[in-house]
Amino acid sequence: MTSSPLAPGWLAEPADADALPPLIWPATAQRTAAGEIEIGGITASALAERFGTPLYVIDETDARSRAVEVRTAFDTAAAEAGTRAKVYYAGKAFLTIEIARWMSEAGLSIDVCSGGELAVALAAGVDPAHLGLHGNNKSLDEIERAVSSGVGVIVLDSAIEIERVAATAARLGRVQEVRLRVNSGVHAHTHDFLATAHEDQKFGVRLDQAAEYVAAIRSHASLRFLGLHCHIGSQIFGSEGFAESAARLLELQAELLAGGEVPELNLGGGFGIAYTTADDPTPITELASLIVGTVARECARLGIPVPALAFEPGRTVIGRSGATLYEVGTIKDVLVGADGTDHVRRYVSVDGGMSDNARPALYGADYSVRLASRNSDADAALVRVVGKHCESGDIVVQSDYLPGDVAPGDLVMVPATGAYCWSLSSNYNYLGRPAVVAVVDGEARVLIRRETEHDLLARDTAYLGGR
Amino acid sequence: MTSSPLAPGWLAEPADADALPPLIWPATAQRTAAGEIEIGGITASALAERFGTPLYVIDETDARSRAVEVRTAFDTAAAEAGTRAKVYYAGKAFLTIEIARWMSEAGLSIDVCSGGELAVALAAGVDPAHLGLHGNNKSLDEIERAVSSGVGVIVLDSAIEIERVAATAARLGRVQEVRLRVNSGVHAHTHDFLATAHEDQKFGVRLDQAAEYVAAIRSHASLRFLGLHCHIGSQIFGSEGFAESAARLLELQAELLAGGEVPELNLGGGFGIAYTTADDPTPITELASLIVGTVARECARLGIPVPALAFEPGRTVIGRSGATLYEVGTIKDVLVGADGTDHVRRYVSVDGGMSDNARPALYGADYSVRLASRNSDADAALVRVVGKHCESGDIVVQSDYLPGDVAPGDLVMVPATGAYCWSLSSNYNYLGRPAVVAVVDGEARVLIRRETEHDLLARDTAYLGGR
Repeated sequence: MTSSPLAPGWLAEPADADALPPLIWPATAQRTAAGEIEIGGITASALAERFGTPLYVIDETDARSRAVEVRTAFDTAAAEAGTRAKVYYAGKAFLTIEIARWMSEAGLSIDVCSGGELAVALAAGVDPAHLGLHGNNKSLDEIERAVSSGVGVIVLDSAIEIERVAATAARLGRVQEVRLRVNSGVHAHTHDFLATAHEDQKFGVRLDQAAEYVAAIRSHASLRFLGLHCHIGSQIFGSEGFAESAARLLELQAELLAGGEVPELNLGGGFGIAYTTADDPTPITELASLIVGTVARECARLGIPVPALAFEPGRTVIGRSGATLYEVGTIKDVLVGADGTDHVRRYVSVDGGMSDNARPALYGADYSVRLASRNSDADAALVRVVGKHCESGDIVVQSDYLPGDVAPGDLVMVPATGAYCWSLSSNYNYLGRPAVVAVVDGEARVLIRRETEHDLLARDTAYLGGR
Repeated sequence: MTSSPLAPGWLAEPADADALPPLIWPATAQRTAAGEIEIGGITASALAERFGTPLYVIDETDARSRAVEVRTAFDTAAAEAGTRAKVYYAGKAFLTIEIARWMSEAGLSIDVCSGGELAVALAAGVDPAHLGLHGNNKSLDEIERAVSSGVGVIVLDSAIEIERVAATAARLGRVQEVRLRVNSGVHAHTHDFLATAHEDQKFGVRLDQAAEYVAAIRSHASLRFLGLHCHIGSQIFGSEGFAESAARLLELQAELLAGGEVPELNLGGGFGIAYTTADDPTPITELASLIVGTVARECARLGIPVPALAFEPGRTVIGRSGATLYEVGTIKDVLVGADGTDHVRRYVSVDGGMSDNARPALYGADYSVRLASRNSDADAALVRVVGKHCESGDIVVQSDYLPGDVAPGDLVMVPATGAYCWSLSSNYNYLGRPAVVAVVDGEARVLIRRETEHDLLARDTAYLGGR
């Protein structure tokens, strides 16, 4: 194999294609003496044998400890600034009944953004007071359900929602705590942020109209205004965007304090994680300290009290706790490059793909891969891991190295698939969705069972298999 | 509202924002005297009342007649060239048991690319001899199931599959007809095509290695080589890419004829449709004539017989037969633009989004929208239709015009959602997938029932609701 110039710059051939960099692998992931990957004390081959592939594997120890770590990071930073912080787990990243319980037990509140996510959190027995409801277009049913079940806070996203939630709460004889989602004009992604006057997106209300909306909220006896909310983006590596956004919101906060209490400020989520070793996000403890520090300084400058803070991490809690286990099917060496400079890219096909991980197709997301059922001394080969879907964009891992002797029947693992993989999964090409298995201390248990062919056909009214 | 320079070039304000251009709407779509959209003789409001929203509405008349039209286009072109054509409906575009029956009754064979799609076709009672199985990574189970159920043809995609299918067929005492998928080096998309020596993608085998693979196929008594297969892309508007690809494959065809029969040539699918009135695909009848004409000319030039032909349309059969019905929830006028030149974009939120139509997020696909439950004399307003998901990329229609009095509770319809919408649908944010309803002659019936909250939670092992 030619060492290929096609690899992205970061993709130096690894010194050790068997290594499991802790930056992107679950905390308990390691190689056994025999060379297999194990997570939570269970080997890849044992998982495949018992549960089949593809398989979402969640390291429960990792998920619970990261939840505590993230909460503690914001708690500590807030305490240093003389305030407190509430941390909501953003359920859209990955929510099952058990995962909701883990988050709750780690002291996190939970953000839900639909009736379905609310149902999961309630089924988990999470105290409704520790739930927040998001959404740009909550249905009347969802609003009614949230208010009647005692959801702690509803994030209002538009003028019409102020009236809808106020009316519902009044009818049900409740006082509903609410936040108002505001567009700060700051958009952040990975390293950079952009600040504009106006935002061309569906969420929230304009910064320069927020005061009038807050007045509307305060005019309703059935609503209690808790504070402003903003969210500046996803997978953000630095603190600058959060700082700029906080500064803008605190100017408004100072203005609003003239008209009544503004006990809290919710700065949303979007904290980035490493998907490959090329990624270098600011550690969450440092990020929390930088953001909260900015808030404290801005409050001092404005001469206002530091509000209680709220944050909504999802990916940074659960992203690295998950890995996906696949079995290798076909392997093909594809000649790429033109002008006589031929190079080989080894296409390694696995038994899942864009149905269990849509992020490469949706966002051009990068992942990495490791041989899981054994280790190998073979020279590393540049590979692309692809799925089994009938679509050329069905790519799981754009570029990485695997031992050159990778073969059909081998198991491979793709780390950092805990967030937005199961959540965005589909049945494209009538593939059933993989099971979700939690592993901890040598035990594995199914959180979500594998989708069967019967499941896939059961809603087809012409299907007789279920009758 | 300012007439906005933000609109794409094609997006002139319409003379009639109520019109239903036949290029992108199902054949039976029309406005009733009262101003509602009806399809198959059923009004939008009747559909919403009976089945709820969001709702996939399939015009059965349209789907059946387009299936016949597409088959006839290739039949006629082939007959003129002194050969015949087999048309496979590409099930990945949209497959339910009933839709499989419609296609079969229209004289189309069906392409499946997974065990699940095969199960649907078999459940529909389609003659297995009229099925083709695709896939770059068919599992051993899928191969066994296809061979044992008598699937007409298997498209072999790699060296290892030749051996796998041959071994399975030998073991089952069958002779399996197979094609070999070849990379022609031609990639086409919409107006342009690109031709290269090598293709950096997962499907098929290299053109310059195909002869040796065909020899391998011919060496197996359990396989019968039917011919070559290629597929050059998706949503292609012109014939040039198909012509170039056909020319390349026919050179190989001539070479292969020296070693045995090559009865067929399968040129795949990828024929484009109009998603908005800005799209201008070559009509399928013309496209069929152009492609088959090229084949005939190349065969004459090479002095070889014109092979039987096969094609695999999906989108061009079913894409325009479907429309999605949504209810409007919140509406927000968002100020966009900078430098003091403020313009308004009206964000119209509907009760679905990227979970029922991932194509805008996945491919940047354009769609259009019409007010469905009434018509209006109000001035047109530039809108963006967005979903209810917790993601700013959750866009259904990037830009179109709706009557300026569009209001919460109104029904809107998005046409041309028949292909790759239900197929790619997800449960993102725990939204249940919409029902699929076929309408014809004033009757509506459910093909796929709506996904309930119970369905969404049923595979969660901690869920007690189902016990």
